[in-house]
Amino acid sequence: MKDFKYLTPTEVVFGRDSESQIATLVKKYNGNKVLIHYGGRTAERSGLLDQVRNQLDAAGIANVSLGGVVPNPRLSKVYEGIDLCRKEGVDFILAVGGGSVIDSAKAIAYGLAYDGDVWDFFSGKVTAKECYPVGVVLTIPAAGSEMSNGTVITKEDGELKRAYDDDLCRPRFAVMNPERTFTLPAYQTACGVVDIMMHTMERYFSHDADMALTDEISEGLLRTVRDSAFKVLADSCDYRSRAQIMWAGSLAHNGLTGCGLTSDWSTHLLEHELSAIFDVAHGAGLASLWCSWARYVYKENVSRFVRFAVNVMGVTNDYTDPEGTALAGIAAMERFYSALGMPVSIRELIGRDITDEEIAEMARKCSFDGTTRIGRFKSLGKEDMEAIYRLAR
Amino acid sequence: MKDFKYLTPTEVVFGRDSESQIATLVKKYNGNKVLIHYGGRTAERSGLLDQVRNQLDAAGIANVSLGGVVPNPRLSKVYEGIDLCRKEGVDFILAVGGGSVIDSAKAIAYGLAYDGDVWDFFSGKVTAKECYPVGVVLTIPAAGSEMSNGTVITKEDGELKRAYDDDLCRPRFAVMNPERTFTLPAYQTACGVVDIMMHTMERYFSHDADMALTDEISEGLLRTVRDSAFKVLADSCDYRSRAQIMWAGSLAHNGLTGCGLTSDWSTHLLEHELSAIFDVAHGAGLASLWCSWARYVYKENVSRFVRFAVNVMGVTNDYTDPEGTALAGIAAMERFYSALGMPVSIRELIGRDITDEEIAEMARKCSFDGTTRIGRFKSLGKEDMEAIYRLAR
Repeated sequence: MKDFKYLTPTEVVFGRDSESQIATLVKKYNGNKVLIHYGGRTAERSGLLDQVRNQLDAAGIANVSLGGVVPNPRLSKVYEGIDLCRKEGVDFILAVGGGSVIDSAKAIAYGLAYDGDVWDFFSGKVTAKECYPVGVVLTIPAAGSEMSNGTVITKEDGELKRAYDDDLCRPRFAVMNPERTFTLPAYQTACGVVDIMMHTMERYFSHDADMALTDEISEGLLRTVRDSAFKVLADSCDYRSRAQIMWAGSLAHNGLTGCGLTSDWSTHLLEHELSAIFDVAHGAGLASLWCSWARYVYKENVSRFVRFAVNVMGVTNDYTDPEGTALAGIAAMERFYSALGMPVSIRELIGRDITDEEIAEMARKCSFDGTTRIGRFKSLGKEDMEAIYRLAR
Repeated sequence: MKDFKYLTPTEVVFGRDSESQIATLVKKYNGNKVLIHYGGRTAERSGLLDQVRNQLDAAGIANVSLGGVVPNPRLSKVYEGIDLCRKEGVDFILAVGGGSVIDSAKAIAYGLAYDGDVWDFFSGKVTAKECYPVGVVLTIPAAGSEMSNGTVITKEDGELKRAYDDDLCRPRFAVMNPERTFTLPAYQTACGVVDIMMHTMERYFSHDADMALTDEISEGLLRTVRDSAFKVLADSCDYRSRAQIMWAGSLAHNGLTGCGLTSDWSTHLLEHELSAIFDVAHGAGLASLWCSWARYVYKENVSRFVRFAVNVMGVTNDYTDPEGTALAGIAAMERFYSALGMPVSIRELIGRDITDEEIAEMARKCSFDGTTRIGRFKSLGKEDMEAIYRLAR
């Protein structure tokens, strides 16, 4: 069994009235001048931004705002945030939104505490020593960034989408009101569901899987999200089911589902290249690739895929045919994605056939020009990446 | 669904080599002069205390030691610790042991930051404003105090056993090496298993149980601990199973299994009176009472007990007889306790019949002379408490 560290310091305030705590939490975590960081229309239209500003104003906490974060958040916006924060003397970043906004906020927080170019962290040039404090008002459950140690930023020059992981950026607090997710469109809800489940599955598909408690938690989480997904697609305002998805999003990516396991992360890395080039939604990209990844790698550990099929997807175990059971589990996940309206091929994702050149280019970037392999469940080189993209085309 | 807060800042270092991190962690959390707090012979004999002292010495961290903490830790020892820490200028308390040692360390940490009598917190007279930092080297998985917000202390004068809960005392770090638990005797292992499961069950038996994700996590945890218990009783050095129990002990009581639920806590409160008078092991006391509590209250929510019977205890659901299924689940738990060597009656616990006068006295104290009720699953007054003690006699 693998040794592990577990650190989830984020203070979670979860429920209908949670937003009322924002100013109190900012003060508790020593925020004196706040950058309110957000995406676009939804946060403005819903009145949430005004509510946050009014609450901070009433509490005597100075604040400035910077919106315009887009999905697959851009390095240029991070630079803009760092400049604004320096000019205004900001000492606390409050992300109001989903994973893109939180990731952008984390990158700004790293950049503020560093004299060089913030991209240095993402390019692997340096390791962070400090990070300004980040708080979160979560409106989109998906990325799990509200409790995670990760941030993913896209550099427009070269269409490079890169992650940087460090405990320093784990948010001080996360305010989560499931009601805020009632207005999420079905497509975005489904993308979130795929991402949440994938954060668990990237950890679950592991060879050193002898941590029974982690397996039980992961399988229970996956079943809960699976069942809740159909409920919220049937009734967008189903509070209970929205709450399951929201809380699962945090637990799926705060480290809990990885305790004692060696995580894989291939599907995420393969997807980053897709969304860097085609600017598709991350969850949709994951759905378009996972089943192809699974069919390419399942023979590495058939019993693990059998367990997934039976305990998560509800497939009846054919004890005489483990491979058949394993494949039935993958097929069941494929039907689940389709039922959610998610793509299960790159063609469904981008609306046209992907070219051989595009596949070669993605594999080239994902493998850092053939110098790097990805994946722990099955180690994948550039040729494997191309094969999986072709399977998924 | 109930709103909730979730805060688990404790940095967990889990695994075979975890003890090598102790000095680094003390420094990270600003410990300059450390009180090493422990129980008795085991920590000394195993060499663990020497290892801790040598490591702190080598790192240049001054330290003093105070042993002698006993199960159901005493207020007098807490006073002794506070005096010693004040005299020595200690600024960090390192608990090396199980729940009793950690609880004693937390009480010392509260007392150090308070001018009055530390018992004021436990008697409900005041609320803590500060607490010195506590770190943990865990050797007995049971109480979950290594990540929890609670401490339970017994005041010898009046045999009063009282809890105080506040996030301030959550340990800064917890070092957990399952190998340290290989030498735990079977009885103590079983007591820990009962306590860990009960921390989950006190939360699980709730009327507002519509947090599916929490239910899944709790049921998975209970199944894991149940199965692991028999494995470690068969092979004391089964690392994987010891690890499940150790990690489950932390997750069962750090708040995770209570998210969205109204907890009950009756069995714990009824047991505190038992162990205050008879000085029995907490886990054994819980086992002696739970089935009687369950039979007394199950009609309040039969479907919850049916779910427990089926999903946790593996009872076949008789859909035509929910009450029968619920009772079969309680009986299955009773057989589980017996198979672990745990008492399922007070007679088995204390080795003689308990008297009516003793029952009346325990109920009097538990109800604060009839002025307080306990329990959320079923509200229990003094007469109910007496009835449950009689059922369990």
